[in-house]
Amino acid sequence: MSPFDHLHLDIPRSNKPRLVIIGGGFGGIQIAKSLRKANFQIVMLDRHNYHTFQPLLYQVATAGLEPDSIAESLRKIFDNHKDFYFRMARVTGLNPEKKTITTLVGELSYDLLVIANGSKTNYFGNRELYERTFPMKQVPQALDLRSHMLQNFEQTVMTQDLREKDRLTNFVIVGGGPTGVEVAGALGELKKHVLPKDYPDIDFNIMNLHLVDGGPRLLAGMSDKSSKKALEYLNKFDVKVSLNTVVKDYDGQKVTLSDGTVIPAKTVIWAAGVTGNIIDGLPESSLHKGRIKVDEYSRVVGVDDVFAIGDIAGMLSDEFPNGHPMVAPVAIQQAQALGKNLVHQSTADWKSFKYRDKGSMATIGRNKAVVDLPKFHFGGFFAWMVWMFVHLMSIVGFRNRLVTLSNWVWNYMTYDRGTRLIIRTFIRKKSHKPSDSL
Amino acid sequence: MSPFDHLHLDIPRSNKPRLVIIGGGFGGIQIAKSLRKANFQIVMLDRHNYHTFQPLLYQVATAGLEPDSIAESLRKIFDNHKDFYFRMARVTGLNPEKKTITTLVGELSYDLLVIANGSKTNYFGNRELYERTFPMKQVPQALDLRSHMLQNFEQTVMTQDLREKDRLTNFVIVGGGPTGVEVAGALGELKKHVLPKDYPDIDFNIMNLHLVDGGPRLLAGMSDKSSKKALEYLNKFDVKVSLNTVVKDYDGQKVTLSDGTVIPAKTVIWAAGVTGNIIDGLPESSLHKGRIKVDEYSRVVGVDDVFAIGDIAGMLSDEFPNGHPMVAPVAIQQAQALGKNLVHQSTADWKSFKYRDKGSMATIGRNKAVVDLPKFHFGGFFAWMVWMFVHLMSIVGFRNRLVTLSNWVWNYMTYDRGTRLIIRTFIRKKSHKPSDSL
Repeated sequence: MSPFDHLHLDIPRSNKPRLVIIGGGFGGIQIAKSLRKANFQIVMLDRHNYHTFQPLLYQVATAGLEPDSIAESLRKIFDNHKDFYFRMARVTGLNPEKKTITTLVGELSYDLLVIANGSKTNYFGNRELYERTFPMKQVPQALDLRSHMLQNFEQTVMTQDLREKDRLTNFVIVGGGPTGVEVAGALGELKKHVLPKDYPDIDFNIMNLHLVDGGPRLLAGMSDKSSKKALEYLNKFDVKVSLNTVVKDYDGQKVTLSDGTVIPAKTVIWAAGVTGNIIDGLPESSLHKGRIKVDEYSRVVGVDDVFAIGDIAGMLSDEFPNGHPMVAPVAIQQAQALGKNLVHQSTADWKSFKYRDKGSMATIGRNKAVVDLPKFHFGGFFAWMVWMFVHLMSIVGFRNRLVTLSNWVWNYMTYDRGTRLIIRTFIRKKSHKPSDSL
Repeated sequence: MSPFDHLHLDIPRSNKPRLVIIGGGFGGIQIAKSLRKANFQIVMLDRHNYHTFQPLLYQVATAGLEPDSIAESLRKIFDNHKDFYFRMARVTGLNPEKKTITTLVGELSYDLLVIANGSKTNYFGNRELYERTFPMKQVPQALDLRSHMLQNFEQTVMTQDLREKDRLTNFVIVGGGPTGVEVAGALGELKKHVLPKDYPDIDFNIMNLHLVDGGPRLLAGMSDKSSKKALEYLNKFDVKVSLNTVVKDYDGQKVTLSDGTVIPAKTVIWAAGVTGNIIDGLPESSLHKGRIKVDEYSRVVGVDDVFAIGDIAGMLSDEFPNGHPMVAPVAIQQAQALGKNLVHQSTADWKSFKYRDKGSMATIGRNKAVVDLPKFHFGGFFAWMVWMFVHLMSIVGFRNRLVTLSNWVWNYMTYDRGTRLIIRTFIRKKSHKPSDSL
C-alpha cells in the first residue's frame, strides 16, 4: 500500500470549463492571475506548496537570505481567487486523448491544460556529477549547499592535513551563466568579509574559488561588454575563471578539467545548464531538444487543448530556432499573452506571441553588477542599484520584499550574513528531488 | 574508516589555564561572556554551530518565525573574544582523572571543565512515543513539525475519508508546562485566523486540539491564578484540556489516554518533560535523578575541577530538594555566579549560589498571557505585552531581535504567518538527534 492510497484529486466541477495549470513558477502564477476574472475553474498543481523566486536562490545558498524571503505560499498568492484549487501533487503523466493528467494521488480531467513546470538541472547524462555536485534549482538544494559549506569550514579548523584543508575550502562552480557568476561573487564576498571573522584560525588564502565554463565567455546571453566586466569583477574577488573548459571527471574529492587541471574540492556547484521537465504522455513529435514544441500561440504541437509556457516550451522561430531563453521574463510574457488569448471565444482574435526583451542583468558581489538594456550596456554601482531594485520589485509578496530588503540593508551595513546556521547536519547525500533525475 | 578520522581537536595551549565549556545554551554562553576578561583560554564545544533561544522554538514550529530569528551563530556571539575557540563537536565522554573529554573528533584536555549541555526530551523509556511523537527541543525538530503539520492539511483536502480527515487535522499536545500551553495557543491561532484562509475547502470544525497533562493543573510551576487563566484562555481557543491524564498508548494513528479516551491523530507533540543530557564518565555517586549533583558553588560532587550549570546541574537544597527548575534564568544566574567565583584565586572568596526567581510567564495566542512576578500575578493584554518585551530583550543578537519584532508586528497586523513553506517534504521519520535517544 502506497502512503498516498487514501488520497484522491477529487475536485468538484463548477459550471465553468476547467483549466489545469502544472507548476507554480513564474509562468504558472502569471497565467492564473491573468485568468482570474475569466470564465474558468482553475486547478494548479505543484509538488511544492510554494513559489520559488529562483533568481535569488543563490543568496539562500550563501547564507544571505532565509527561504521565507524568496519563497511564497501558493495558497496565499491565490487566497482571494474564486473557483481556484491548489493541490500539492507531482504530475507523473498526461493523456491528451482522455484529457486527463496523472499524479501520485490520482487522475484529474481537464478541459484546457497549461504545462508550466519549468526546467530541471541538466547533468548531460553524467551520473557521477548528478550524485556528487550541488544543483541550484530548488530551496532544499540551496539549504543543503549552505549547510555543507559551513560544515566544511567547521571541519577545516579541526584538521592539520593540508590537502584535506584544500579540499574543504576550495569551491568549483561549473557554468558561467547568471547563476554561476552570482554564486561565485557571493562566495567571494563570504571569503573576503564574512568568513574570516568567524574562523580566525583559518588562513583564507588557502580558499580558492574556481569558475569553469565550456564557452568562450561568461554570461553568454549578455553583451560582450558585460561579459568582460563580469570577468573583471570576478578577478577582483580572486575567482579563477577557466573558459572553453569542461569538467571531465569528479570523484567527490578532486575535479579534473578538460585542460588537465586537477582541483582538490569537496564542493562542486553545478550551474551548467537546465533542460525541460518533460512529463510522459506527449508524442515524440511534440518534443524538441528537451522542450515541448509549441506554436506562436503557445499551443502544443500535435495535441488539442494543451498549452506550454516558460522554460518547458520550445516556441521555435527564425529568431529563436531552439526556442526562447529559459528565463523568467519569457515565462511571464508568454503567460500574459496566453491569458489574453484564452478569454476570446474565437481563436480568430488570438494574437501571436512576440518576446519583448527588456534586458538582462547579473550581480557580482557588493556594489557591482552588469546590466544590458536593449540599447545600452552598463556596469558598476549604478547597475548594482538597478539589479537590486528590479529583483526586489519582482519578488512575489509584499512581506517577502520587506524581509529581503531588510536583510540586504543589514548585510550591506554590517558586512555580515545573518543566517549561518547548520540546520541540515552532515549531509552525505544531497536532497535530490525526483525532478533532478538524470 | 569513520568520516571523522581526519579530524582532530588540536587546540594550541596558551599561557592561560584552559577552561572547556560543553554546550552553547543559556548557561554556556553566559559563562563564556562572564569570563571574557578573566585569565582563561576558553574552548566551547557544541554539536550545533548555533545557540537556540528555546522559549520561542514553538513559534518556528507553528510557522510564526524562521530559525534565523531565534538561533544565533556561536562563532558570531564570540567573534570579539580573545583566546576563545569554538568547535562543532559532540562530546561523548569525560575522564575526570585524566582531565580530558572525548568527542567524535578526538580528545581534549582541560584544566577546568564546565558542563552546560542542558537537557533532552524525556520519553520516560517509552520507545513508541520516542519514535512517533514530535519533540520540541531543537530547531530541526521544530522545522519537522511545521512541515508535517502543513503536509497534513495538504492531504486533508485530498481525502474524502472522514476518519482520515480526523487523524490529519487533530493535534494532541502532551505536557501542560509552558511549551505545551504555548504550542496549544499558537495552534489555536492558526486554526482560527490563518489556516481557514489557506484551506477554504476544509471545515475547520473538524480540527480538534487536545492538551493532556498528568498533573492536576496547567503550568504547575506557576501560581494557581495563572493556571486557571491559562485554562480559560485555552478554552476560548476550543483546546480540550485533559488534566490528571497520561498517554497510555500511541500507534501513530490514534492516541489512547489513561481515562480510556481514544483520539485519532497523526500528530502528537511531546512536551511532557525533559531530563539531563548525562555524558558518560562521571561516577554514579555524582548523579541524581538524571542530573549531575553539584554543591552550592556549582562544583560537581566527587570530582575535581568540574562544574555543572543549568538544566544538567542538580544543586540540591532544602528549598530545591531535586535541584532548581530547568529554566533559562537558573542557567544564566548559575553561570554568572560561577563566573564571579572563578576569577578569585582563592575559593575562600567564593560565594554560594542563591537563585533569584524574577518570575515566570507564558503566552496563549494573540493578546493573552499570564505573568507571575514574585508578589504579583496577572494576565491578559498587559501580561502579553510584558511577555513580548521580556522575550524580545532576551534573544541573543540585535539582528535577531529586529527580525523577530518585525515578524511579530507583521503577524499581528495581518493575522498571517509568513513562513508556511513545506521545505522538508513527506517526512516519515523525524530528525531525531542522537541526544534524544531513549
